[in-house]
Amino acid sequence: MTDPLPSWNDGPAKQAIVTFVRETTSEGSPKFVEPEERIATFDQDGTMWVEQPAYTQILFAFHQVSVMADNDPKLKDVEPFKTVLSGDGAAIGKLPLPELLKIVAATHSGTTVEVFQQAVHDWLATAQHPRFKRVYTELVYQPMLEVMQYVRANGYKTFIVTGGGQDFVRTYSERVYGIPRDQVVGSAGGIAFSYDKSGKAVLTKDPKLLWIDDKTAKPVDIHLMIGRRPVMAFGNADGDQAMLEYAEGGDGARFMMLVHHDDATREYAYGPESAMSPFSAALMARAKQGDWVVVSMKNDWKCIFARQS
Amino acid sequence: MTDPLPSWNDGPAKQAIVTFVRETTSEGSPKFVEPEERIATFDQDGTMWVEQPAYTQILFAFHQVSVMADNDPKLKDVEPFKTVLSGDGAAIGKLPLPELLKIVAATHSGTTVEVFQQAVHDWLATAQHPRFKRVYTELVYQPMLEVMQYVRANGYKTFIVTGGGQDFVRTYSERVYGIPRDQVVGSAGGIAFSYDKSGKAVLTKDPKLLWIDDKTAKPVDIHLMIGRRPVMAFGNADGDQAMLEYAEGGDGARFMMLVHHDDATREYAYGPESAMSPFSAALMARAKQGDWVVVSMKNDWKCIFARQS
Repeated sequence: MTDPLPSWNDGPAKQAIVTFVRETTSEGSPKFVEPEERIATFDQDGTMWVEQPAYTQILFAFHQVSVMADNDPKLKDVEPFKTVLSGDGAAIGKLPLPELLKIVAATHSGTTVEVFQQAVHDWLATAQHPRFKRVYTELVYQPMLEVMQYVRANGYKTFIVTGGGQDFVRTYSERVYGIPRDQVVGSAGGIAFSYDKSGKAVLTKDPKLLWIDDKTAKPVDIHLMIGRRPVMAFGNADGDQAMLEYAEGGDGARFMMLVHHDDATREYAYGPESAMSPFSAALMARAKQGDWVVVSMKNDWKCIFARQS
Repeated sequence: MTDPLPSWNDGPAKQAIVTFVRETTSEGSPKFVEPEERIATFDQDGTMWVEQPAYTQILFAFHQVSVMADNDPKLKDVEPFKTVLSGDGAAIGKLPLPELLKIVAATHSGTTVEVFQQAVHDWLATAQHPRFKRVYTELVYQPMLEVMQYVRANGYKTFIVTGGGQDFVRTYSERVYGIPRDQVVGSAGGIAFSYDKSGKAVLTKDPKLLWIDDKTAKPVDIHLMIGRRPVMAFGNADGDQAMLEYAEGGDGARFMMLVHHDDATREYAYGPESAMSPFSAALMARAKQGDWVVVSMKNDWKCIFARQS
């Protein structure tokens, strides 16, 4: 028997995953889960790849602001673009959410869906993480990739359920996670149908925000896009609590896991012990109450990043 | 070689399907389509199963009105429920769309998603079609099931893209079409997240209509839910035109097919030649201009209905 999770240290977290998968997929087991019910949902940022010092998609949006300003220099005088273009990290870091959404709307609209996908693809091919000096798609967590592969090998259908944009994540989900585009649930902007000059049907991205896939919207969007209650759910932040509770609330065997970022040496430490953590002390208490598995990146993971993109 | 489409008569429609699948899945073929791009979308009502004399889901909604009236007799005096409960077929047939949507909203809300699914399941198990005296899930078109199975066997991922409700169709899509719930795209109502008395997370259906998956909303919803332009698209009505045009507008090999209901003896005849047809003369002209395959149920299909549910 080869180890299905070679990047995990032996311990309760690894043991919990292996035991759960074995018990839910062995015929005759009291915890057996029918194949069509085997749905596993994974948050992305902070659960599958690095989300510090900023969400990758926000960095892409900032890059697109500079592309836009090259074509329309007047933007340099208009906020919030002016702040982004200033390169002043402290000021950029203080941009409030509505201003960030304005930047996302402006940089994620006005083109066909194919042109947008190409822009994401091109940026991801070269942009590097400021600390790790690697492209972002190489900063995927190897232990979590192994979990995805392991549960899929046991008949689970894996989905990304992310606060990030569907159109952004879908450009690399197949290559990086082995997850087809239609198994990516995320935030979405408006899409308009029209015909191009040659009469061909095209879809164009418009600036309207349709939904933000976070907090209680995660279970709602899981129902709208997947149509089943997940049996396994993986997250790392307060925004994932409702998704894990939705998984927990179903009948039969249930598996909920949170990734605790406690490894400042190899990645970052920003768990409940830090101020302003996206993983609050209340979530840690909820995890303990529900017997959810909390993974220590420091202790449970032999390595952090995927060996290759 | 066994015939992959045994319920199809030899002729141009069958030949077109077989040729397209062979050419797009043979390595080295100039029309080869990469496996991840192999997306096939199927309308449901009138394309996969009978839609006359009324949409099956509307008949379910009418049944639910009688269940509601049993619990709340005052409904018998309130329109449009009064008309539905009168059993006056002519009056019911004249209910305008906003009144029908009112009935759907009232009968498709107020319960958890699981309770709703069970109600649909129970009704489908016994309700019979007025003419064919069979349960509705036996009134699926055998030749179209064979197309689904054939393209799937060649690496295409099949999706239902229907004006019907996702939550309705998903109760039987796996059993009847072999299509998992998450590969059903349809109209959808609001979903609310809350906790039940025992503290478990539940989703409840609310009466708000989120989107109607018809006409140009079909390609938009395909993008939102699937994230790829289909290579093959199947429909039977004006409401499917935009979906077929979206399939047509992509690069490389493309396959568009319309089912023409021209068989009053074995099913119904309500094509462009009839007044008020959902398949207009304009759509027939568009199909000819685009070289879309138009299937004659009368001439192309050896049998109509699935041999078993």
